[in-house]
Amino acid sequence: MTAAKAKESPASRWLSYRPEIKVLDCTIRDGGLMNKHQFPDEVVKGVYTACVEGGIDYMELGYKGSRKNIVVGEFGCWKYCQEDDIRRVVGDNPTSLKLSVLADAEKTDYKTDILPKSESVLDMIRVACYVHQIPTAMDMVKDAHDKGYETTLNLMAVSTVAERELNEALEIAAKSEVGTIYVVDSFGSLYSEQIRFLVKKYLGYAKATGKEVGIHAHNNLQLAFSNTIEAIILGANRLDSTMAGLGRGAGNCLTELLLGFLHNPKYDLGPVLKCVQDHIEPMRANMHWGFDLAYMITGQLNQHPRAAIKYYEADKREDIVNFLNRVSE
Amino acid sequence: MTAAKAKESPASRWLSYRPEIKVLDCTIRDGGLMNKHQFPDEVVKGVYTACVEGGIDYMELGYKGSRKNIVVGEFGCWKYCQEDDIRRVVGDNPTSLKLSVLADAEKTDYKTDILPKSESVLDMIRVACYVHQIPTAMDMVKDAHDKGYETTLNLMAVSTVAERELNEALEIAAKSEVGTIYVVDSFGSLYSEQIRFLVKKYLGYAKATGKEVGIHAHNNLQLAFSNTIEAIILGANRLDSTMAGLGRGAGNCLTELLLGFLHNPKYDLGPVLKCVQDHIEPMRANMHWGFDLAYMITGQLNQHPRAAIKYYEADKREDIVNFLNRVSE
Repeated sequence: MTAAKAKESPASRWLSYRPEIKVLDCTIRDGGLMNKHQFPDEVVKGVYTACVEGGIDYMELGYKGSRKNIVVGEFGCWKYCQEDDIRRVVGDNPTSLKLSVLADAEKTDYKTDILPKSESVLDMIRVACYVHQIPTAMDMVKDAHDKGYETTLNLMAVSTVAERELNEALEIAAKSEVGTIYVVDSFGSLYSEQIRFLVKKYLGYAKATGKEVGIHAHNNLQLAFSNTIEAIILGANRLDSTMAGLGRGAGNCLTELLLGFLHNPKYDLGPVLKCVQDHIEPMRANMHWGFDLAYMITGQLNQHPRAAIKYYEADKREDIVNFLNRVSE
Repeated sequence: MTAAKAKESPASRWLSYRPEIKVLDCTIRDGGLMNKHQFPDEVVKGVYTACVEGGIDYMELGYKGSRKNIVVGEFGCWKYCQEDDIRRVVGDNPTSLKLSVLADAEKTDYKTDILPKSESVLDMIRVACYVHQIPTAMDMVKDAHDKGYETTLNLMAVSTVAERELNEALEIAAKSEVGTIYVVDSFGSLYSEQIRFLVKKYLGYAKATGKEVGIHAHNNLQLAFSNTIEAIILGANRLDSTMAGLGRGAGNCLTELLLGFLHNPKYDLGPVLKCVQDHIEPMRANMHWGFDLAYMITGQLNQHPRAAIKYYEADKREDIVNFLNRVSE
């Protein structure tokens, strides 16, 4: 076979890898949406250890939620990620694993609650916003960047954003200090061709200004992993995943699937499997996450999963055809 | 937007469909591998009704297994699919749903057990074989074709077939009477780029001689649905799926996901959801099918799922890292 022919064969690519690719495990952050962020410390420690031993690049611990008017005990500490809580689990984090938190636009007192990098064990601040919150988000990115952090912009629910507005948002982000711009499929409703269209678009804005593109996928249509692969093939280098797919509703791209796909020898599947078995799966009895029919239906309809989450929380399970008819109306 | 630009946008394709695409639901056939084909009649009837009402094109009832030396009661009747058993459920099948069975090369007495089409309610005989069984399979295809049936060739475990042998097999199949040639990912180990490579290859052989290409995917890597979409995009028109993904090991592409994706208005999701709820999910307590870690591991290693099936059948669950290390050796 000639060299040119060998290059065409997909199998030839199995033997190499892109060192720029970084995996961010957001098990505790996205999973926290299913249990009000009430993880025992040993679970957070278990995920942290698995990330370190598994060679994962970033671990996201939770949110930087505003603590104004909070009801003590309503939410676990990973909704706020105060420095003391983080250090209780990771100490000074003397590892190569970087740590991140997510800050939602309009739900965080970022100016006061995000410490200067020199006083924090955190490495990265990820800013999440809806498209109309871009001005706030950009101020948050600047604040975090100026404090010394790596930053990302996670523009949520992109499947509902008009293309003209998306272009404008990406133009603004491309001119900002942000390091990575994420394609976020909040409703898990995007098919591969739509992912291709979006990732190409994001790359067009990001690459011109030296930024990376990331992908955060949900599994409502069992496409979280395949859409992440699609994004990798096109050039996205920042990949979100969670162990056992733990996350809101249908959950996320599985870390264990992703590590099995990536060929960088620094990744090790064993510690992640052990963590899933010992710490994540035991929580399943009390938390309904992962692909299931009601989540599939909201994904097919390009809707927020809240109706499906309610469906599974109900004491008596509604007939699934009723649910389909009700949410389709 | 100009017409040319509109054509580039993936969203523009959401609004049309390819009428040539046909869905084959093989819930009872592939699922039978997990319960020795022992389905109560009401379950088979439930799936049949859902296929009819859901607008599905084909339903596969089971195998045409050899009845020589059988131990009565060891397997259910859907391992043999005798005419009386089929008619007990479907009568004379006065519907537009076509019925198929799968005949495994070297495991069937096809010359005697497959009746002439005029005496059977079946419409299609699907022939499954490994690559070294191609001569037998071709004789089976000819036999079924001459008896008046539609036919397919399902070349199994293609992820383990050397390319030179695959080319030869496809060349032989292309010259035969067979109507459809299937890409069969028996181990659920193929990634999208490998699916693209194979589907393009199969289409090259099949289209030149007026045949269709089909796809039969397994869900070990949560890629059964996305690989089916990949195949559709490239031109495959025959799609296998099962309700709730019921099938051997990690199971199959879900019929309910596929119907949600296909835009042909003849398909109706409701009856399929009802069947999943009323007939399929109640069986889950006694049958371990669908994505899970041990199935993922055999998929990642391109192995037959038998080690994983044993893992889940064991009285005491082995440590998952032990399993990984053991099957990786």
